[in-house]
Amino acid sequence: MSYLPIKQLLQTAPASQTVTVKGWVRTKRESKNAVFIAINDGSTIHNIQAVAEPGQLSEETLKLITTGSCLAVEGNLIESLGSGQAVEVKVVNVTVYGTADPEKYPLQPKKHSLEFLREIAHLRPRTNTFSAILRIRHALAFAVHKYFNDNGFYYLNTPIVTASDAEGAGEMFRVTTLDPINPPRTEDGKVDYSQDFFGRETNLTVSGQLEGELGAMALGKIYTFGPTFRAENSNTTRHLAEFWMIEPEMAFFELEDNMNLAEDFVKTVIRYALDHCADDLAFLENRLKEEEKNKKKEEQSDMTLIEKLRFVVDNDFVRLKYTDAIDILLNSKPAKKGQFQYEVAWGIDLQSEHERYLVEKHFKKPVILTNYPRAIKAFYMKQDEEPATNARGEVFGPTVRAMDVLFPGIGEIIGGSQREENLDKLVTRMEEVGIEPEAIWWYLDTRRFGTAPHAGFGLGFERLVLFVTGMGNIRDVIPFPRTPKSAEF
Amino acid sequence: MSYLPIKQLLQTAPASQTVTVKGWVRTKRESKNAVFIAINDGSTIHNIQAVAEPGQLSEETLKLITTGSCLAVEGNLIESLGSGQAVEVKVVNVTVYGTADPEKYPLQPKKHSLEFLREIAHLRPRTNTFSAILRIRHALAFAVHKYFNDNGFYYLNTPIVTASDAEGAGEMFRVTTLDPINPPRTEDGKVDYSQDFFGRETNLTVSGQLEGELGAMALGKIYTFGPTFRAENSNTTRHLAEFWMIEPEMAFFELEDNMNLAEDFVKTVIRYALDHCADDLAFLENRLKEEEKNKKKEEQSDMTLIEKLRFVVDNDFVRLKYTDAIDILLNSKPAKKGQFQYEVAWGIDLQSEHERYLVEKHFKKPVILTNYPRAIKAFYMKQDEEPATNARGEVFGPTVRAMDVLFPGIGEIIGGSQREENLDKLVTRMEEVGIEPEAIWWYLDTRRFGTAPHAGFGLGFERLVLFVTGMGNIRDVIPFPRTPKSAEF
Repeated sequence: MSYLPIKQLLQTAPASQTVTVKGWVRTKRESKNAVFIAINDGSTIHNIQAVAEPGQLSEETLKLITTGSCLAVEGNLIESLGSGQAVEVKVVNVTVYGTADPEKYPLQPKKHSLEFLREIAHLRPRTNTFSAILRIRHALAFAVHKYFNDNGFYYLNTPIVTASDAEGAGEMFRVTTLDPINPPRTEDGKVDYSQDFFGRETNLTVSGQLEGELGAMALGKIYTFGPTFRAENSNTTRHLAEFWMIEPEMAFFELEDNMNLAEDFVKTVIRYALDHCADDLAFLENRLKEEEKNKKKEEQSDMTLIEKLRFVVDNDFVRLKYTDAIDILLNSKPAKKGQFQYEVAWGIDLQSEHERYLVEKHFKKPVILTNYPRAIKAFYMKQDEEPATNARGEVFGPTVRAMDVLFPGIGEIIGGSQREENLDKLVTRMEEVGIEPEAIWWYLDTRRFGTAPHAGFGLGFERLVLFVTGMGNIRDVIPFPRTPKSAEF
Repeated sequence: MSYLPIKQLLQTAPASQTVTVKGWVRTKRESKNAVFIAINDGSTIHNIQAVAEPGQLSEETLKLITTGSCLAVEGNLIESLGSGQAVEVKVVNVTVYGTADPEKYPLQPKKHSLEFLREIAHLRPRTNTFSAILRIRHALAFAVHKYFNDNGFYYLNTPIVTASDAEGAGEMFRVTTLDPINPPRTEDGKVDYSQDFFGRETNLTVSGQLEGELGAMALGKIYTFGPTFRAENSNTTRHLAEFWMIEPEMAFFELEDNMNLAEDFVKTVIRYALDHCADDLAFLENRLKEEEKNKKKEEQSDMTLIEKLRFVVDNDFVRLKYTDAIDILLNSKPAKKGQFQYEVAWGIDLQSEHERYLVEKHFKKPVILTNYPRAIKAFYMKQDEEPATNARGEVFGPTVRAMDVLFPGIGEIIGGSQREENLDKLVTRMEEVGIEPEAIWWYLDTRRFGTAPHAGFGLGFERLVLFVTGMGNIRDVIPFPRTPKSAEF
């Protein structure tokens, strides 16, 4: 290539060498002595400044150089006289690749609301905020692959189209090529899915875990990293209909190994972002600071974005049984003052307010909660031998070797468990919760043939990006969000 | 962890240290002097041998140790007396995690056909062939991410559920949550998709390119690597309904930059596999050699698997215009002898037989064909200024800056182009081929605002894995293939 990305140009020692800059105009400023053009090419949050002498560029060309237009600038790389940048480009020649009519181009240099930018998701990566988010998202994705590769895991592409809803994890999207108006029917009037593309009813996957277990019971350690889908009609800042999941699964791992892995994994990828995305994180940290200025004092966070990330990386996660967490919650100020919206009792599915109390108020550290009540967890989790007891010797119901990793601000970021490897226990549990064992005969084969202790967890990638970027709405950390009534672009 | 993967154990210097091996029994052999158990844990193609003294293990335990059963073996790591391995484990204790009834476990130590193994895709990763394929698939996937990360590309997750069939790339899968029997209707009797989950008709993506272009026109260089779908009723060894695509897209790249990138990219990832998967490639190379013995001499390949990979890595790819390729084909022996099944003429879409002739017979090198007839390529490809002419000055129709990379054995492995960045030309072309510009207004915005030269390509990941592993059927290089009438597991 005959030109360098701006990221590299900005790190090049100036010696009046001839360079070419290609990118999009962020701003143009004309003074008596010069024309200053700030150019960005997406390789970095920083612009490079091109400086032309007055009269050097024709009136016609100058008119075309507006925010959003695309240029190739040839010039000399020189030391910058202005503050804020080490080098700038003294213009020799400008080629305008593409214009951006100021009357029509929506991204003029002023503050745009995130809501507005969501409506032009096809253009928002051209803003500082979204280019920073997408570069960080990339770095985190790469860190995920690097972590697992470095640690002997194999990437397993589990299927997106599946015929099983074994997890009963929620509403699913149907995948079909049948005539939508007049689908073929069976004799009893139902849809005849045997004539559908796959010869049966198929859906978009909600999790690759079951197939991941098949992989782990052959390759030892595997991970998935791919799209998953939930057809939940939830219009919240935390839900997407299409999101990316990371699901490692490890033969011979028990609950404690699983916790060790989860903690090391999430710390390592966040550390990677701290090490590789300093400029973008600093930009987003400042963005948050500005945003916080408009908040009430009690709603302002006591840590900056980077402090919050360092806090996760530098602290040991607290490890705690569910039953002990319930005790802490029952004895907490908000419980005694009736400030929790949802009542606390052994057996409840912890609500966000409870999780956040534990993490943000009580321990002030990330927390791994384990050994949840069996009744509120999935059928495949390994059953504990003994029922739960608390410090006072009270006996509760049966538990499973589940673990949830809870983060400040965000609640559950990782959910996992050791898996039930005993065929009889697993089948009995499936029957109790109404899952037909024959429907996933292939999954049960892992327990029929050479079963072994194993464990795994799932991490919603967008949750991680949300945490690392400090953004407030999950629709802002994926390029093209899919939500109820919205599949634009 | 209190145990090491077998891959690491086999590289450990023996000093009678105590070790634990966890894995699945491949074979057990009892002699007068010892019991030999070959154990594999999926971390490597190689087994580790555990040796017990006669009588050391109870009859009861010995009976449970059968092919496919899962063990933890404690013992001492000692130098191996047998050939073929450096170290072995002198058994101190054996724990049987899981049995595998020889009457029922399908993977007994004998040769199984690939067809049979496809029917038990949930177990086939436990075979040498499929564990080797999946480890190589992992290495290639990691090499893809590493290559793009090293070269300043950002990973962009383009949407899986889309509302556009802009490419007109073929039959698509519908994604819906409507009642399949009685979908809501509009007044004129059609399905009322406004009541569907996304408020419109949606499908599974056939390509992330259009969204990828949006990313490139903001971040400079992006790539996608995710699942794509084709609802084609093709039961061949080359087609999957669900497959993984890699699609880089680069602002400011023209056709030649695109070719340089494609060649460097595919060589780098194949070199990565050669460097990191030597054992697995050697295993698959031997597998192919055995398979070839049953073939007629003229059907045997003149290169081994690794020679074929080296050949791609070590040779410059030939770069040739479509029009010149047609000339070569017209003057070829097979054309003159009437041996091509499909007639050769300027304007045809080259068939596999033509591509393979150019690569395997004429040039004996990978070939990049460029400047195809406009009529047989997609609407978004950049139009050449001048119509094609051949060496004799004959003038043909208009061409586009397309490029296809052709590989031995496999034909097209990469397809790409410079993109038409001129709004008027693009819209005119869309209208000519019957695509409604309004349907992808957001795509056209890249040409309305700050347009620039750009280019990209697509590579079907399974095609690459097929080439590198030397397998013959694409269903054997993805863990759980999705094909017409088949969505098991």
